[in-house]
Amino acid sequence: MGDRVGHTVLTEFVMAALAKLGVPQEDGRVTAEVLVSADLRGIDSHGVARTRRYVQGLRDGVMVALPEIRVVRETAVTALLDGGAGLGQVAGVRAMRLAMEKAAVAGAGFVAVRNSNHYGIAGYYSMMALEEDLIGISMTNAAPLVVPTFGRDAILGTNPLSVAVPAGSERPFVLDMATGVVTRGKLEEYDRHEEPLLLGWATDSKGLPTSDASEVLRNLTGRLGGGILPLGGAGEELGGHKGYGLALLVDILCGVLPGAGYAASLYSKDESGHPLPANIGHFFGALKVDGFRPLSEFKDSMDDIVRVLRGSAKAEGQERIFIHGEKEWETTDERLLLGIPLHPKVVADLRALGVELDIPCPF
Amino acid sequence: MGDRVGHTVLTEFVMAALAKLGVPQEDGRVTAEVLVSADLRGIDSHGVARTRRYVQGLRDGVMVALPEIRVVRETAVTALLDGGAGLGQVAGVRAMRLAMEKAAVAGAGFVAVRNSNHYGIAGYYSMMALEEDLIGISMTNAAPLVVPTFGRDAILGTNPLSVAVPAGSERPFVLDMATGVVTRGKLEEYDRHEEPLLLGWATDSKGLPTSDASEVLRNLTGRLGGGILPLGGAGEELGGHKGYGLALLVDILCGVLPGAGYAASLYSKDESGHPLPANIGHFFGALKVDGFRPLSEFKDSMDDIVRVLRGSAKAEGQERIFIHGEKEWETTDERLLLGIPLHPKVVADLRALGVELDIPCPF
Repeated sequence: MGDRVGHTVLTEFVMAALAKLGVPQEDGRVTAEVLVSADLRGIDSHGVARTRRYVQGLRDGVMVALPEIRVVRETAVTALLDGGAGLGQVAGVRAMRLAMEKAAVAGAGFVAVRNSNHYGIAGYYSMMALEEDLIGISMTNAAPLVVPTFGRDAILGTNPLSVAVPAGSERPFVLDMATGVVTRGKLEEYDRHEEPLLLGWATDSKGLPTSDASEVLRNLTGRLGGGILPLGGAGEELGGHKGYGLALLVDILCGVLPGAGYAASLYSKDESGHPLPANIGHFFGALKVDGFRPLSEFKDSMDDIVRVLRGSAKAEGQERIFIHGEKEWETTDERLLLGIPLHPKVVADLRALGVELDIPCPF
Repeated sequence: MGDRVGHTVLTEFVMAALAKLGVPQEDGRVTAEVLVSADLRGIDSHGVARTRRYVQGLRDGVMVALPEIRVVRETAVTALLDGGAGLGQVAGVRAMRLAMEKAAVAGAGFVAVRNSNHYGIAGYYSMMALEEDLIGISMTNAAPLVVPTFGRDAILGTNPLSVAVPAGSERPFVLDMATGVVTRGKLEEYDRHEEPLLLGWATDSKGLPTSDASEVLRNLTGRLGGGILPLGGAGEELGGHKGYGLALLVDILCGVLPGAGYAASLYSKDESGHPLPANIGHFFGALKVDGFRPLSEFKDSMDDIVRVLRGSAKAEGQERIFIHGEKEWETTDERLLLGIPLHPKVVADLRALGVELDIPCPF
């Protein structure tokens, strides 16, 4: 890792870059904050390293800088938003906010989004609900990288799902997981270091397990067969059909339900090979605790279950049992204080982007 | 497998057994139907083989034959039910019905249940929603059998979750999965056949991976350490922390949210070692499709995504890609026609139960 950069410096840089592409200031701020939140949480693959892809999408016109985001359908509890092919973060934050408003009044709120783009980390949106002591739900479909159980081709995305639950004096539970066994970022990391992949992570062009990261990545780019395995790995013996089921469920709620793209139709190209709008879909939910149980009692029990797990006996050779989100809270504390350590390649890329866009790069 | 028995014969037998323990006829019918539905779907571990445990629970008084099931809290969208320590199926069906009624009016409905018992297969309840073209959600916590990532002791249940989604001319998507990598039933099967467990399924009393089924079962019974691993296996390399997170999420929604038992507090005993009521909790949800998208369009897209997956290229050596629920639909078709093949041990146990309870056993 290279130098550390402060999170506000990074946020302002990304905002400046997006502004150059015609993104309104508030939309740019939202997008930059979601990206930087990933870096703060230690999910570097979804952070500011993505800035160039967004810039490129806006340049190509497959991401719209000034989208018409509109409510297509709405009830007291549900809504469908059309993201206008804009930045996923802008539609995502608006949709999650709407789900939370509905939950505050009705006890639950669910908002699906169609015609959107990459929205960053799923956990950003589920965690918004924590501000108001709601249980938050967030999921998105994504570019096809995951093979179904017994299948050869990557048809599903790594389709993450996140649920955030408030606690009392303990930190909230934040599950934020890809339904693939690993992310593409992990394969890229192994490829860079020329390390063999674990068997159970990915398959080759015949659909058979492989440890060759660079071959898997090449096959994914060319859609030549193979890809990332679902959580649970190959076949059914270790539960690969369950991970496949979760990935498909996310695609149903994010793609089929709002009428967005789904499966291999996401990120299509036109006849001349020019990329079409991604037509990504998201699904957000918020649930009010006191519809079931008084909030203070609930929080006490959340603290208790966290402590029961954390305090339970460790497997031989292990020192700590983690609660979901705990590692990320600790990383955030450190990075807020010391800055975000950026990979030298990311720094170089952002600096080059600064030159291209004629914006100052203070790092 | 032994003889095949018709599903109505089995249902009536279980109803007769429960009636002898003072369970009202309608409650007995509901319970029997949920159990037999598991046998019909091929999930034999959750079927009529469980009858004796229910009879024993009713005899011991930890399951109440005439429970006072009451609505503790209620809004237009949410409710909390107290199951009165009765049969889990009775509270479960009532709660799911209530969630569906709310969804039909408000667009979504969520009902949590406390003070309940084993409710059979999660999929029975999610599939109830299909009758009214709703998306159905069902989950339950369960006896502690699963070790958290890096932990030694079984703190969480195999905590299943199920989501059922209607389709058009294709059969519905029915995800019904334990969040443990395998079920206890699977370990028992391997133990009976004296086969080694796959590494990644279970851990020994030190919390280290083991292939010794009989040791794992003995340790679980005695709470001596070790147990079933979460989906994703040991450690984090294959995503075990994700399965652990899903198991914990189910425990939060089913245990913490309704104020039921959770983690290792389920199935406690009093000072003299006598079992206390299990205090199992469940969580049910129903979501109306047309809050997001016209039902007919949605169903067309469901048919399409099912066909895209089923029709996609197979991995070398594989002939078929399954959609979740597909195997179970086919098993149900066959068993409705030919009867349910019962293991000779199950037949013998049910016959003995018939003699004990003085009810005729027509098989």
